Amino acid sequence: MIIDCHGHYTTAPEPHNVWREVQKANFKAGGNVDPAYPDISDDEIRESIEKNQLRLIKERGADLTVFSPRASTMAHHVGDEAVSKAWTRRCNDLIKRVVDLFPETFVGVCQLPQSPGVDIAHSIGELERCVNELGFIGCNLNPDPSGGMWNGPPLTDKAWYPFYEKMVELDVPAMVHVSGSCNPNFHATGAHYINADTTAFMQFIQADLFKDFPDLRVIIPHGGGAVPYHWGRYRGLADMLKKPLLRDHVMKNVYFDTCVYHQPGIDLLFRVIDTKNILFGSEMIGAVRGIDPETGNYFDDTKRYVDALPISAEDKAMVFEGNARRVYPRLDKILKAQGR
Amino acid sequence: MIIDCHGHYTTAPEPHNVWREVQKANFKAGGNVDPAYPDISDDEIRESIEKNQLRLIKERGADLTVFSPRASTMAHHVGDEAVSKAWTRRCNDLIKRVVDLFPETFVGVCQLPQSPGVDIAHSIGELERCVNELGFIGCNLNPDPSGGMWNGPPLTDKAWYPFYEKMVELDVPAMVHVSGSCNPNFHATGAHYINADTTAFMQFIQADLFKDFPDLRVIIPHGGGAVPYHWGRYRGLADMLKKPLLRDHVMKNVYFDTCVYHQPGIDLLFRVIDTKNILFGSEMIGAVRGIDPETGNYFDDTKRYVDALPISAEDKAMVFEGNARRVYPRLDKILKAQGR
Repeated sequence: MIIDCHGHYTTAPEPHNVWREVQKANFKAGGNVDPAYPDISDDEIRESIEKNQLRLIKERGADLTVFSPRASTMAHHVGDEAVSKAWTRRCNDLIKRVVDLFPETFVGVCQLPQSPGVDIAHSIGELERCVNELGFIGCNLNPDPSGGMWNGPPLTDKAWYPFYEKMVELDVPAMVHVSGSCNPNFHATGAHYINADTTAFMQFIQADLFKDFPDLRVIIPHGGGAVPYHWGRYRGLADMLKKPLLRDHVMKNVYFDTCVYHQPGIDLLFRVIDTKNILFGSEMIGAVRGIDPETGNYFDDTKRYVDALPISAEDKAMVFEGNARRVYPRLDKILKAQGR
Repeated sequence: MIIDCHGHYTTAPEPHNVWREVQKANFKAGGNVDPAYPDISDDEIRESIEKNQLRLIKERGADLTVFSPRASTMAHHVGDEAVSKAWTRRCNDLIKRVVDLFPETFVGVCQLPQSPGVDIAHSIGELERCVNELGFIGCNLNPDPSGGMWNGPPLTDKAWYPFYEKMVELDVPAMVHVSGSCNPNFHATGAHYINADTTAFMQFIQADLFKDFPDLRVIIPHGGGAVPYHWGRYRGLADMLKKPLLRDHVMKNVYFDTCVYHQPGIDLLFRVIDTKNILFGSEMIGAVRGIDPETGNYFDDTKRYVDALPISAEDKAMVFEGNARRVYPRLDKILKAQGR
């Protein structure tokens, strides 16, 4: 089967987005930051999915998407902790409804109620709720809740450790995923996303996080940012920092997805990164929605690029399914319970 | 001939670095930020070059290096404008001495006296001095003089325009090159450098800088950051932003060097980027100084990777020489005056 590890609900029904605007306006006016949530019918949700993700999943031939709230609108820098908490809960609850309506096509991954300067331990409650009560299988962890100001501690700082302890206990991985950028230097999907991926990987090289958490699993999306292209640089920097080889130091815990939107990029990814570290992903419907005039296909139809790789059927099965079942053990359990 | 477009004087004689420490101490103490400069003999400079860059240039078989002050110690965020101005002048004067001692092996590119929050127009005087008086052929332009805080305007902001006007008038290109990072999230050479390259490219996509300056030429080092690996993403984002094709919108003015420290990365670079946009570079002796255990060669011996490419002799001549002569017209003039 074909599991897409990277999908966001970018097509949520409009009342959900309107609620967020009301919330933000209320925050500015000093009002209620958790106003009444609109009635959104199952049909509205069904339609938003069937016309979009589900249509493309069928067209492109995938089976299941690991689904989370829209990344660019997590916007942890907006408002304060209470704003982030209320918004996050609404977003995750909406994902749960999608999963319940399409239980064979979507599994949930949660947004976290991060907020700049707020202890990440405050996000543990929502992680537990989503995993234990909603049946989610992982989380999106924002390495820069400031939205492009980068004024918090690196991911390897001890401040993050209580959260990692909970991840290990629950046996869920995190995708390192920033949100929108409020820094005019950084275009969100063209710079901030890719920079964050690169930054996180280098933080992992500098520290010994995975010595402290040998069971922690992290997915770096967008093909690992700049990392595979500069794999020699990172191997060389690890050497200069007197760290072990990357395969021992980082790559027992870190995975890259295939959200790289052209064949040469995917070819490079598979040339330098072990297949066991690559998870199929498309981030569809996401940052790049057009058709590549050079191929006539959607830029983000990453399955085509993987299909075109000269690798064995076993390797493809790892990338499309096996690795995801291994990285998300709770996904594997759900699938087995479904007889898949 | 073989021209390396990207070398920094990372092995400057120790008294030069000591002067900088004195300067910084004086700044803190409210003292003279332009103290007397030590006597550094020609022999000291000769030795620092002959033992290092010159030795490797000969070993690796290059002919000439476009040489500028050490990037990581430009540190525009340290001190204030007067500190940056005095330090920059000392650094550029030292490059001039190297060029005078080895006029067939080095040509100068200048550091700029940038300072956070200070108008870039204040850097025009030093650019003019270096080009008109010292015979330099280009400059290193720091897109983030804050050192990882990214609190200045994007490179496409009108605030930079007076400097671009002078670049065009003098017919010199800029390499977009950040310095050290004082943000604990960003390792200097492992994250900040690569992020800056990616960021600059995306800024160029978002704006219409090269419509306003059709003759402006910019080199994005380190193989263009993440850009070639994500070339599909950038083509797709340009499309979503309703910009022209990248080849018309950006790639008439932007060049990438070959500072990518493994064969698969160089292969990708040449697969997706037009040869006319690629300049040979190594950034030697720089960020990554070790030997790749997988090949037995230095990571930063990028000439080997280019030599190994299955491209025509004409294409190699463009990358090693022709493109550099075109992008740096003042280099071409110097070489012609030398009968080369």
